[in-house]
Amino acid sequence: MAPPSGKRVWKAPFTISKMEVKDVRFPTSKGKHGSDAMHKDPDYSAAYVVLHAEGTELKGHGFTFTLGQGTDIVTTAVRGLEQFVVGRRLENIYNAFGAYWRELTSHSQLRWIGPEKGVIHLATAAVINALWDFWAKIEGKPVWELLSCMSPEEIVSLIDFRYLTDTITPEEAVELLRSKWSDEEARKKRSEFVPLGPCSILSSLLSSSRCLEALKAGFTRFKVKVGQNVEDDRRRCAAIRDIIGYDKPLMTDANQVWDVKEAITHMAQLAEYKPLFIEEPTSPDDIHAHLTIRKALSAYGIKVATGEQCCNRVMFKQFLEARAFDVCQIDSCRIGGVNEILSVILMAGKFGVPVCPHAGGVGLCELVQHLAMFDFVAVSGTLENRFIEFVDHLHEHFLDPVNITNGHYIAPTLPGYSAEMKPQSLDDYEYGKGCMWTTQQ
Amino acid sequence: MAPPSGKRVWKAPFTISKMEVKDVRFPTSKGKHGSDAMHKDPDYSAAYVVLHAEGTELKGHGFTFTLGQGTDIVTTAVRGLEQFVVGRRLENIYNAFGAYWRELTSHSQLRWIGPEKGVIHLATAAVINALWDFWAKIEGKPVWELLSCMSPEEIVSLIDFRYLTDTITPEEAVELLRSKWSDEEARKKRSEFVPLGPCSILSSLLSSSRCLEALKAGFTRFKVKVGQNVEDDRRRCAAIRDIIGYDKPLMTDANQVWDVKEAITHMAQLAEYKPLFIEEPTSPDDIHAHLTIRKALSAYGIKVATGEQCCNRVMFKQFLEARAFDVCQIDSCRIGGVNEILSVILMAGKFGVPVCPHAGGVGLCELVQHLAMFDFVAVSGTLENRFIEFVDHLHEHFLDPVNITNGHYIAPTLPGYSAEMKPQSLDDYEYGKGCMWTTQQ
Repeated sequence: MAPPSGKRVWKAPFTISKMEVKDVRFPTSKGKHGSDAMHKDPDYSAAYVVLHAEGTELKGHGFTFTLGQGTDIVTTAVRGLEQFVVGRRLENIYNAFGAYWRELTSHSQLRWIGPEKGVIHLATAAVINALWDFWAKIEGKPVWELLSCMSPEEIVSLIDFRYLTDTITPEEAVELLRSKWSDEEARKKRSEFVPLGPCSILSSLLSSSRCLEALKAGFTRFKVKVGQNVEDDRRRCAAIRDIIGYDKPLMTDANQVWDVKEAITHMAQLAEYKPLFIEEPTSPDDIHAHLTIRKALSAYGIKVATGEQCCNRVMFKQFLEARAFDVCQIDSCRIGGVNEILSVILMAGKFGVPVCPHAGGVGLCELVQHLAMFDFVAVSGTLENRFIEFVDHLHEHFLDPVNITNGHYIAPTLPGYSAEMKPQSLDDYEYGKGCMWTTQQ
Repeated sequence: MAPPSGKRVWKAPFTISKMEVKDVRFPTSKGKHGSDAMHKDPDYSAAYVVLHAEGTELKGHGFTFTLGQGTDIVTTAVRGLEQFVVGRRLENIYNAFGAYWRELTSHSQLRWIGPEKGVIHLATAAVINALWDFWAKIEGKPVWELLSCMSPEEIVSLIDFRYLTDTITPEEAVELLRSKWSDEEARKKRSEFVPLGPCSILSSLLSSSRCLEALKAGFTRFKVKVGQNVEDDRRRCAAIRDIIGYDKPLMTDANQVWDVKEAITHMAQLAEYKPLFIEEPTSPDDIHAHLTIRKALSAYGIKVATGEQCCNRVMFKQFLEARAFDVCQIDSCRIGGVNEILSVILMAGKFGVPVCPHAGGVGLCELVQHLAMFDFVAVSGTLENRFIEFVDHLHEHFLDPVNITNGHYIAPTLPGYSAEMKPQSLDDYEYGKGCMWTTQQ
């Protein structure tokens, strides 16, 4: 059956009246949660946005993820974007969302401090994510389902194709999306809340007992942080292989610590533990270095993954064009929100590169499940070689936390982007104001 | 004669006691100074830093350049770096400057909002530039001369080679610098305040009479902004060629407005006006696109230039490796200050690509003359195909403004980085406080 075509007119006759911006920090550095070779003591944090509008009780919640210090810089940037938000009618945004995204990222003065990268782009992500949460709540659907029901033309109209047309044109993107409707039964089945891919689980700082626990809970993929000392890395890889055996994938993550030669030499010494891939072996900006590493490590059967700090669609485009990685790790908060991520998912679809979202931190798992689900239903059509990262912390602060069953994400069903934190958590962890920062310092 | 070798111990027994941070904005949008296809109404601005230290009356002044809105975001980021500045002894910084630079850019929490790009890297540039101004004042030399007198080992020790060693190692860099000492007479001559290359002059918004005036003043290179409408561009190129003739270079600048195909098609239609190069034809992040455009336009004899928004040394490395541009346009304020720029100058030297600094804005001309002079004296050894951009405004706010004579920069002789603004200008133009913003709004 043919997919829906054309563009409908969205109704959301509400004018944004207020944008709250909060600096929310969880003092995770105390327990060294999520520390790695480059980020030794992160406080998982969020530059958090709440959009209010006249005429509706609904609100749009969104955020970008940060590591503690610097969140105030990002909230300052979010406030700089308020001029594009407050006073706007939501339906005017949603009916020309691609154009709105370009407007938001093209301010004649503000673009200089990016463009489309770093702090100002993280701020864009927070605002855009909140607009998507708002839209999905108005439509009464989770974001992934709102997207999956759109016609190819509607999806393509969400995207700013500036700087992409040498790789994918809007017309090509429509064709790609249309082709996935050929078997409507299969598509329907994909959208019926199937378990979404096996999760991976971080294990760098987990004890053997925690690893065993995860294995018993149904997790089938494991990841270990590497990069400091090769002997330490060998010992930890060996310990994890002892527990999980060699039939389950083990992934490695170096968090950008190496130059090209170091990456190749170091990973060659871990090859006997059969890592599926090495993630972020070097600078996230270095397409050429990733390609060199990828070519060298293919001799050892080790793939290369990156993307969590890839700064925008132009960089993803070049990684994909150059075949510089095997696994495309989108992040929900670094590039400019859902709209720009859609362009990456479509380009990865064109090149046949699996999209495996980066997650963890605070709230990243909640968001990326929507993106992975959309990719599965509407673009890739397969779960083969696809999975979503999972880390088991800070989910208790969300109203609609991830549902992990037998090591699988279960697609969310509540309206929105699963981005909304509990009011109490927002109050308690607001930096400099909440009781977690004023009484426990 | 052999160059000085080894590393001396620098003396600067002063502890930084205070870092002032100012948001200084010049309301240039009123006159549309410097507007282009992407930045239609910039207010040339600076996130401005003044370093005070115990035991000396000298101060270090530095800044990063911005376009108005967003300067507050950058000053917030600069304050986030204060922890690496106040309380430090200057000589400890200068005696291990490369290591200090890495420390400044590798904070476990702050690096997440870059890394090494956007707002946090602009803030790094402001701080590093102020440290260089301070150092040069303490040594009683202009920055270019301080650098040019250093041994190869000293220069290399200023640089963080992380992510660069697949292209240039510290040892190679020492060799490259050492080779330029072979003819000491020539080197000495180069350092004797020779006129530094012809300037280019922006002409997009200049009347024919202004262009003629510049020609009479000795300018030999001209640049025109293009990219909006091809007929307009043809008319303006023709008008300028009428005045300057075809024996003087005419450059074109599109400020990132095009995708690949548009760039090629548009420039092909300007080929009859013999542009020397097209600057920033597309996204500053798109190495591959620049290469495609460069290959296509070489048929028309048009070169490709970029770099003013290239975000760090890793991106420059890839542009150079891929031969994606013909002209390397370093900026003094976007990448992390003098230390990181040195690595770009060295890589460009290795690849034989001319370094032609981007300037204009506010204070960029003052800073880049030091970088170009160092490149000439110590790295490239030639002025062939090298020039520095020049725009004639806002120099009156500086204590040591550029000296342009007969269309040439004359190398500065006063100690420092020529970065210090007049106290009155700092007072009058401080955003939200100075009389230019409180009485004229």
